[in-house]
Amino acid sequence: DRNSLLINLGGGVITDMGGFIGSTYKRGINFVNIPTTLLSMVDASIGSKTGINLSSIKNQIGLFSDPLSVIIDTQYLETLSKKEINSGYAEIFKHSIISNSNFKKLVENPNLVYDEDIIANSIELKNKVVKEDKFENDVRKHLNFGHTIGHAVESLFMNKKNKLLHGEAIAIGMICESYISNKIKGLELSKANKIKTHLNKFFNKVSFSKKDIEEICNLIKYDKKNHLNIPKFVLLKDLGLVVSNVDVDLNLIADSFDYY
Amino acid sequence: DRNSLLINLGGGVITDMGGFIGSTYKRGINFVNIPTTLLSMVDASIGSKTGINLSSIKNQIGLFSDPLSVIIDTQYLETLSKKEINSGYAEIFKHSIISNSNFKKLVENPNLVYDEDIIANSIELKNKVVKEDKFENDVRKHLNFGHTIGHAVESLFMNKKNKLLHGEAIAIGMICESYISNKIKGLELSKANKIKTHLNKFFNKVSFSKKDIEEICNLIKYDKKNHLNIPKFVLLKDLGLVVSNVDVDLNLIADSFDYY
Repeated sequence: DRNSLLINLGGGVITDMGGFIGSTYKRGINFVNIPTTLLSMVDASIGSKTGINLSSIKNQIGLFSDPLSVIIDTQYLETLSKKEINSGYAEIFKHSIISNSNFKKLVENPNLVYDEDIIANSIELKNKVVKEDKFENDVRKHLNFGHTIGHAVESLFMNKKNKLLHGEAIAIGMICESYISNKIKGLELSKANKIKTHLNKFFNKVSFSKKDIEEICNLIKYDKKNHLNIPKFVLLKDLGLVVSNVDVDLNLIADSFDYY
Repeated sequence: DRNSLLINLGGGVITDMGGFIGSTYKRGINFVNIPTTLLSMVDASIGSKTGINLSSIKNQIGLFSDPLSVIIDTQYLETLSKKEINSGYAEIFKHSIISNSNFKKLVENPNLVYDEDIIANSIELKNKVVKEDKFENDVRKHLNFGHTIGHAVESLFMNKKNKLLHGEAIAIGMICESYISNKIKGLELSKANKIKTHLNKFFNKVSFSKKDIEEICNLIKYDKKNHLNIPKFVLLKDLGLVVSNVDVDLNLIADSFDYY
């Protein structure tokens, strides 16, 4: 009944769907998130966003709604494949890049994926950003570093045999957008290279044909059209120094895949 | 896109559904309600509640969400049948009873249904109550006068040939609950009689068999079970003096239909 508690135990799909259902059942009942994937622990279950996809459009339906609490138990990580862990790690590393915290430590210790302190720091960073700007008018946009190209890559492979996990696609996006950041926002090339080298330790290289890259550019263009042509890129001037709403030339996007 | 405006033009079904859709499309876009029925003008479009039915359970899915604005144009009333107008009037009269405003005026002038001032007062009353107690923990419950029996009556006839409009069912509920208010909360019988006589000017008498009344009692009992046995009745000590969370004996509910 309307005094019931809904417990969402699972990965990001479950916490997103469960949050939406809890928020709309009988005009909203309490819900608790217990994320069981690294990605959901550091990202999906934090930040008030709930959503479901409509046909192939991500998060087309949803709302902003907060769980009563989020319970993180890192024992669940032992149930995950290496591939799933690495997917979550991409978001941890993103948090480290945009806040310039633990960057050196992570780059020098690729085995820190399971580290409880690192996970806790990552959650705190996201939580701080969300508290400051829940509705994504300002600093919350910084969390989208790597996601403009990353989402397009994720969409491109969604219906193919070699489907990518979210973190795998975002890792490619971060490498490409670091290159673009170097070209137009002055991020030092050595830092872009460090980001690329580090991420490539976790993910297999994906091949992109010329046609793939054209399609990715189209997906980004289409996405922009849907938002009154507001430029979507979030780029780095430096580690911890992020700029939002940047417009990027399509040729430069294509070049960034050569760099990747 | 997420900067679009949704305009809900229609009766309560449209403003309820449209409000729900607007609130959940891309995590919420702005919406405006333009109610075209009297019921929606004075009730459905005001008060932040949006909802849709799940199979036969009313408002099972929904949320609290406010339109950017509600635009009332009484010209739309000219497009309604007398039956539809009367259905909306039941809620206007309810507002008058629970706030003890305009009661005498309405009872003495059954032709004031179309009156702009009366409509405006009715909206203001509902708006005031909702602002004070949006989530229905306290005074907002007063708006449920007539609705415990009324909803059961509405459900009973939902799948029958002689389906009742919401206001028609609520009118019956108000007459029955006025009688119960007289029996256990001290509402003067003359006032209960005035409520009955006035409402009977607007609605055809409905016949209830013994089996109908048993079914209504079951519907009310079932409804209560769903809410941790919290008593659901909202009764009158007097005009403008309302008590919530009252438990009522099933025999007294049956008696109230004799009074009706």
